[in-house]
Amino acid sequence: MTNRLAEGTRRKSRIKRLQKLRTAIAEKGLDALLISQPENLRYLSGFTGSSGWLLISEQSAILAIDFRYVEQAKGESPGFEITQTKQQLRDWLPGLVSDFGWYKLGLEANFISYEGYHRLSEAIKTKQVNLELVPTTGIVEQLRSIKEPGELGFITKAIELTDAAFEQARAIIRPGITEKEAAWEIEKILRQEGSEGIPFEIIVASGSNAALPHARPTEKTICSGEPVLIDMGARINGYCSDFSRTLFLGKADKTFREIYSIVLKAQATAIERIESGMDASQADRFARSVVEQAGYGDAFGHGLGHGVGLAVHESPSLGPSSTDSLTDGMVFTIEPGIYLAGQGGVRIEDMVVLKNGKAKVLTKAKKDLLL
Amino acid sequence: MTNRLAEGTRRKSRIKRLQKLRTAIAEKGLDALLISQPENLRYLSGFTGSSGWLLISEQSAILAIDFRYVEQAKGESPGFEITQTKQQLRDWLPGLVSDFGWYKLGLEANFISYEGYHRLSEAIKTKQVNLELVPTTGIVEQLRSIKEPGELGFITKAIELTDAAFEQARAIIRPGITEKEAAWEIEKILRQEGSEGIPFEIIVASGSNAALPHARPTEKTICSGEPVLIDMGARINGYCSDFSRTLFLGKADKTFREIYSIVLKAQATAIERIESGMDASQADRFARSVVEQAGYGDAFGHGLGHGVGLAVHESPSLGPSSTDSLTDGMVFTIEPGIYLAGQGGVRIEDMVVLKNGKAKVLTKAKKDLLL
Repeated sequence: MTNRLAEGTRRKSRIKRLQKLRTAIAEKGLDALLISQPENLRYLSGFTGSSGWLLISEQSAILAIDFRYVEQAKGESPGFEITQTKQQLRDWLPGLVSDFGWYKLGLEANFISYEGYHRLSEAIKTKQVNLELVPTTGIVEQLRSIKEPGELGFITKAIELTDAAFEQARAIIRPGITEKEAAWEIEKILRQEGSEGIPFEIIVASGSNAALPHARPTEKTICSGEPVLIDMGARINGYCSDFSRTLFLGKADKTFREIYSIVLKAQATAIERIESGMDASQADRFARSVVEQAGYGDAFGHGLGHGVGLAVHESPSLGPSSTDSLTDGMVFTIEPGIYLAGQGGVRIEDMVVLKNGKAKVLTKAKKDLLL
Repeated sequence: MTNRLAEGTRRKSRIKRLQKLRTAIAEKGLDALLISQPENLRYLSGFTGSSGWLLISEQSAILAIDFRYVEQAKGESPGFEITQTKQQLRDWLPGLVSDFGWYKLGLEANFISYEGYHRLSEAIKTKQVNLELVPTTGIVEQLRSIKEPGELGFITKAIELTDAAFEQARAIIRPGITEKEAAWEIEKILRQEGSEGIPFEIIVASGSNAALPHARPTEKTICSGEPVLIDMGARINGYCSDFSRTLFLGKADKTFREIYSIVLKAQATAIERIESGMDASQADRFARSVVEQAGYGDAFGHGLGHGVGLAVHESPSLGPSSTDSLTDGMVFTIEPGIYLAGQGGVRIEDMVVLKNGKAKVLTKAKKDLLL
């Protein structure tokens, strides 16, 4: 019964998503939209295979997949017309489009390759199909950026999982263990507690390695008197969490205590001042001003945060040059950092949801570890 | 000392690769080639970050990365000129190209998105830079398809790891365990034995799930009287292995024994008859004929195999419509399969290297499990 209810909810939410998408397709003057970006595909159809094509028009919802995925598609995407493709996109699409009488077909221009576009375009000419390809960007991504209650539920579970794993991880991060060993222990915790794989490679970066914002765990042994930056995520029902903390083993020196408190203040300032309706670049500005005023502006080289959902990095982007706007229902990270080459670094990352105009912090793990 | 020797060998092989690439660039009449496909980037420069741009001309070898990767690039890519980029490709590339006086710049047309190409092209016009963008495909992939002895060494180690893990896995695959549990146990074995992560999600597909060539492990419990298809890989120093076996728990019925022996015969036929200089589609033909003659042609819906190296799927492609040719030094899988919807399936996958004109099997794990 519970499963049937869940299935019913899923179908209803998919129908709503298709309605919204069809409105967007009509607004852009398209007859149909071709979707193949994997998270967009999953969001709309439920299909989780690594390759497939969705064709959505006012009347149709077609899922085109090859031999390998036919059985899976039938199970995952009820309500969609499943078509088994042979050969390449350029071989079957022109005929299908012709059958439906579509004249303007939107493509995901950020996902289709230049070569794929070019070859499809050639095939349309060769087959003398009267079709205009229209490059589009961000249509489905925009829908995905506003989370439904069900999606927020899965994200919250993924966040609870990283919070709980961090509690256990703190006991693991001790002098003598290597970064790689620690990362593997954390991964085992996450997965044994129910994470579906992990959404990205866990970072455990100690000492001067903590100055690399995208460090990979190395064979380096973690020592006393060092900062340790941990960045990890979990996945529940496809939805991700993203989480960072920086620990210090032993007594931290003055510089480290200083940059830690600046990062913490930058984060708190952003969380407090962010409002729905605001430009995402303004959110970045709140945190960056704090870091700049403290004299570390050059050491905060990445954006303040990013949306999280089916992908661990998705819309909106919170950075100095972002053109996104913040809206109620968006879920994103707030993760300022300061990185000092050769010395180490600090990043503190929470996830928030915009609700009733303000940022509500979803991450619960402690961050006053040093103060 | 050993590390220094290894570093010396790596540098020498990188210099050779650049020489070959420069020859290819000159042959195509290009002034420079822009490379960003991650495995191509790693192959040429050693850089393992998830985003970066390599610009290779007759005189220059530039690695352009953003703030996050500067320290990492310095460590991983000695001999390359490291440039820190700000903003997007379209913001910095036109100026750099202008400074070098390049007129024809090759791009990886299968990797750059339509949108990325289009925006770069617009920026070049706006900035009035005299530059022609030339879409190219497969230049670096072609070099990568022929393995050097050092590369073959890493691949062989990765294969030995999957062979050994399969020995342990056979004790795990017992009635009562779920597919997901079994896959996780296998992953732990692979990683604890030294695999750098795993190159793809492990498949453990039992009963009718074994009819899905790309099945994901489910909560289904493995039962007696069922086929169990296992597909897994390891990674050593960036290089992958890929391996499949199909087990049967208990006494197999007639159909299963029949399809198992057909798949085995198809594989043996291909291994025996493949020769260097041959079209890759002919290799596929050898195995496919055996399956077709036995009346199961429709149930073998994928290609015979694929190259394996830094990527688990790379050049050459061995399928009915492949246009690749087979050459000494290539490493690829030979993996025929028969899949019967609702009943189950069989796939047997070995890796081979082409040496002295013939296929030498690298995988050692038993496959006469049922006969």
